Amino acid sequence: MDINQLGDRILAGDRRALARAITLVESRRADHRAQAADLLDRVAAERRQALRIGLSGTPGVGKSTFIESFGMLLTGQGLRVAVLAVDPSSARTGGSILGDKTRMERLSRDRNAFIRPSPSQTHLGGVARRTREAVALCEAAGFDVVLIETVGVGQSETVVSEMSDLFLLLLAPAGGDELQGVKRGIMEMADIILINKADGDLKAAATRTCADYSGALRLLRKRPQDPDGFPKALMVSAVEEQGLAQAWEEMQALTAWRRENGHWDANRAAQARYWFDQEVRHALLSRLDTAEAKAEMDRLSAEVSGGRLSPAAAARAMLATIKAD
Amino acid sequence: MDINQLGDRILAGDRRALARAITLVESRRADHRAQAADLLDRVAAERRQALRIGLSGTPGVGKSTFIESFGMLLTGQGLRVAVLAVDPSSARTGGSILGDKTRMERLSRDRNAFIRPSPSQTHLGGVARRTREAVALCEAAGFDVVLIETVGVGQSETVVSEMSDLFLLLLAPAGGDELQGVKRGIMEMADIILINKADGDLKAAATRTCADYSGALRLLRKRPQDPDGFPKALMVSAVEEQGLAQAWEEMQALTAWRRENGHWDANRAAQARYWFDQEVRHALLSRLDTAEAKAEMDRLSAEVSGGRLSPAAAARAMLATIKAD
Repeated sequence: MDINQLGDRILAGDRRALARAITLVESRRADHRAQAADLLDRVAAERRQALRIGLSGTPGVGKSTFIESFGMLLTGQGLRVAVLAVDPSSARTGGSILGDKTRMERLSRDRNAFIRPSPSQTHLGGVARRTREAVALCEAAGFDVVLIETVGVGQSETVVSEMSDLFLLLLAPAGGDELQGVKRGIMEMADIILINKADGDLKAAATRTCADYSGALRLLRKRPQDPDGFPKALMVSAVEEQGLAQAWEEMQALTAWRRENGHWDANRAAQARYWFDQEVRHALLSRLDTAEAKAEMDRLSAEVSGGRLSPAAAARAMLATIKAD
Repeated sequence: MDINQLGDRILAGDRRALARAITLVESRRADHRAQAADLLDRVAAERRQALRIGLSGTPGVGKSTFIESFGMLLTGQGLRVAVLAVDPSSARTGGSILGDKTRMERLSRDRNAFIRPSPSQTHLGGVARRTREAVALCEAAGFDVVLIETVGVGQSETVVSEMSDLFLLLLAPAGGDELQGVKRGIMEMADIILINKADGDLKAAATRTCADYSGALRLLRKRPQDPDGFPKALMVSAVEEQGLAQAWEEMQALTAWRRENGHWDANRAAQARYWFDQEVRHALLSRLDTAEAKAEMDRLSAEVSGGRLSPAAAARAMLATIKAD
């Protein structure tokens, strides 16, 4: 594969080239990893930025319908939209976004949209890294908005918020006045909480839930990156396409304020440092992944489990064999 | 400090030498770490083994009273007992075992007992490593039983079970017939569940709770390391010192069966492999902890956050500077 040519096609906005490049960054083969690194370096030089929107919501809140309706609103305004997923739990057989791609029928046929399921890996760290690289490729391909969705398994919200400019939490109307057991840490990540299904029989419940969350958000400690009134809770109906335009206006207002006040750049810089740190740790530990290192680990492991070496002494012996790159 | 001499005193069962050695393994100074490694290698050569008992229970279940009563039962039988704690949440100001040491008044005065609070570190990995080394020192000092207690913050039960031969879960009688929200993963770790406070007004509730847990344990998948009837739930009263002798008999019966059937050795071998793997990863990442590495990380971090280098490119540059040990 000619990486320069692939890079040029991505920068020209070619969706097939983008899909191929994402497949490349998802590969675990060493030669593919090296090509992916070259490609990412090459396209990063253009320094294109999309608005990265993280979106979390448990199954049943209408996430795919929301993405479809919201995505169509954006493409209707002439914007190009990419949708990526972080779902470490998924073996991609059912459930989330692969099925969503068929459910997001209109959006997946839209020439200004690009939908990509989560890479099939069980390890969240691996999914995080590849998704982050896919986001960078989408930005290089000139997408205006990159939606990164997660079903909220374990730490995946944190991972998504570490690669997003904005974080949305999508909720369904609650039965009573309880706050649906949303973890405090997740609420504290949200810039905007969207109560979906504000339509038909659920409209009254949605109004009440929205008021409950507005109250709960006011009790949170004010963050420096928020203008007055944020974070906020809004009602939407993805099915009836209600409230989406207003939600988008709020997102744009928040983003504009953050850009003007230096928070956008500061957040991007902090995220870059975070991912740099993660990359270094990952790369260092990958020195254990060579065939030689694995064989030596196995040999020493047998010594340790046989009681002939202490774990610490064996670790020292192992470390002595690991060379620099 | 003369490490050979310190090792000899530990092997002779000197409690002051043991306390001093644990302080040494808890130190983060590089020269102390090297001395600690020498000491651990030296005492490990004797290959002494205690019965390591992991004990988990949330605050309020009467853990310190249980440890006091159970510990006194063991020392009353001529056994030497060490008590260690894994509590990453603790800044050691209040709460757990440091306070316990004053509450465990009788046990802490017993010449056959040794009580040591958790090392004060916020990082669970650090606490785990140092506790494991402290366990090894207690074994070398000839203790028959090492009790490792945890308050069950985050992953600390997993850490404790990875260094234990037996895992006890201490619970209080429940109000209704609900299973007190004990996480399934924790229940699956338990070899024996002890319902404490089976005395006075709570006796009926304890009986019901014990029956509930007996039922719940029967629904779990049978593990190869369990003889018939295990894991099991028992009632105890630490305050009235009831049921403790029977619980100890059950622990001994379980341990004897596991020794006879090879599970004791297999478990110890698997744990040794696990800790070897953890040690290697930790030691590899500690190559980032030198002054030179930190300075280079800071320099590259600034390049990354300024947008002049991608996280991946900076990580490659960083890796190239990290030498083997």
